[in-house]
Amino acid sequence: MITDDTRKRVEVCFSPFLFSLFKDEFDIIVVIDVLRATSAICTGFHHGIKEIIPVSTIEEAQAYKDKGYFAGAERNGKIVEGFDFGNSPFSYMNPAFKDKTVVLTTTNGTKSINLAKDAGQIAIASINNLDAIKFWLEKQNKNILCLCSGWQNKFNLEDTICAGAICDYLINTGKYVSIEDSSIASKYLFLSAKDNILGYLKSSSHRRRLLNLDLGEDIKYCLTPNITPVIPVLVGDRLVALKEPVLQA
Amino acid sequence: MITDDTRKRVEVCFSPFLFSLFKDEFDIIVVIDVLRATSAICTGFHHGIKEIIPVSTIEEAQAYKDKGYFAGAERNGKIVEGFDFGNSPFSYMNPAFKDKTVVLTTTNGTKSINLAKDAGQIAIASINNLDAIKFWLEKQNKNILCLCSGWQNKFNLEDTICAGAICDYLINTGKYVSIEDSSIASKYLFLSAKDNILGYLKSSSHRRRLLNLDLGEDIKYCLTPNITPVIPVLVGDRLVALKEPVLQA
Repeated sequence: MITDDTRKRVEVCFSPFLFSLFKDEFDIIVVIDVLRATSAICTGFHHGIKEIIPVSTIEEAQAYKDKGYFAGAERNGKIVEGFDFGNSPFSYMNPAFKDKTVVLTTTNGTKSINLAKDAGQIAIASINNLDAIKFWLEKQNKNILCLCSGWQNKFNLEDTICAGAICDYLINTGKYVSIEDSSIASKYLFLSAKDNILGYLKSSSHRRRLLNLDLGEDIKYCLTPNITPVIPVLVGDRLVALKEPVLQA
Repeated sequence: MITDDTRKRVEVCFSPFLFSLFKDEFDIIVVIDVLRATSAICTGFHHGIKEIIPVSTIEEAQAYKDKGYFAGAERNGKIVEGFDFGNSPFSYMNPAFKDKTVVLTTTNGTKSINLAKDAGQIAIASINNLDAIKFWLEKQNKNILCLCSGWQNKFNLEDTICAGAICDYLINTGKYVSIEDSSIASKYLFLSAKDNILGYLKSSSHRRRLLNLDLGEDIKYCLTPNITPVIPVLVGDRLVALKEPVLQA
């Protein structure tokens, strides 16, 4: 479709359920779960966690916990019984985690990571590390898919807006192009939302769900741009923070 | 989630691929395939077709054709070899079709109809019959799902904008509510697009695809609001136009 064009693609997949329609075309898969898994992961690295092992099931997390690892587990917005923490970013500021390995399973985000890990290099995005991930992606010159984790396989607004911000930036560099309607829609939604993300998401289903669980502070944190410059990437079965300094483009 | 609330729901499913996540909660499934199946269907009824049999496969369409039916078949924007017409709305203005039964198979739209037909009452929407379908839905007082046919199971903008127009209208009546983020996003996208739908969709992937096939006139027609007041609904295996007059709400 794009002939005589050296630009790389940046596209958006709205749900893990749709990933099979996209998976063979991309070099880097940017996993996004703004509320709250990828925000928590970025926060953990910002506060000195050495590595994070994302697992899909509670049983896997429990097995690591039994071996003495710090292990968090969240389902449907709540900490799973028997675990000390879930995916609240505030849990990942724990000084005890510094230089340690932490295991995590969540409803949506860690499943997306494991779904996509064989399809390309996994990188982790959130609103908290938005500028850093944008500048890093710009330098990669690869075909990029933003994989929104959604909510139980359905589309969600906060992941889409984060993906739209990435597309908007990369397209504006002139080095990237989006050809999928999902990417174009994400960009439009980001541009409408960007001046007041919290207000824009006031009716978001997932935000309502978390507010019902009294997680307003988590939401405010997760929707705050550029708290950290970390770029978590998957190496083997573990997320680590890239060592290279991320410079403004 | 909605307690003490007598409002019915109006929601949007972005793709037939996601339909299984929604299918058990709705009374009416509004199938949308703006470019071009549902626009062609509305046009056919406006021009006097008696009934349309939507079939999923070329083989089924061929079997009807062999029995002497008028049968259309489209795949990837083109008329299938051996058929006289596909899903261009202009084909459905044919005076020979008046009071006749026509059979149709298309890449996306007729598949959506057959996918959803056991989940609720099927109604057909396009931009061409937008006001009619909005006013009719308002009177139904049922839980409504707008099923966007998309393009090969991926999200598309034109179906989403049509669905967003339906949501926006029904929510504004005070009788309906949307709780899914996909519905909220559709509404936002419609509100950005509504003053210039053709311009808004200029970068749409499907529109580009059809322009490459020299189908610019089809696109312009399909994006023209309120050409017809017909409400096609599925009765058994056939689409028919509702007889009741549709009055402005």
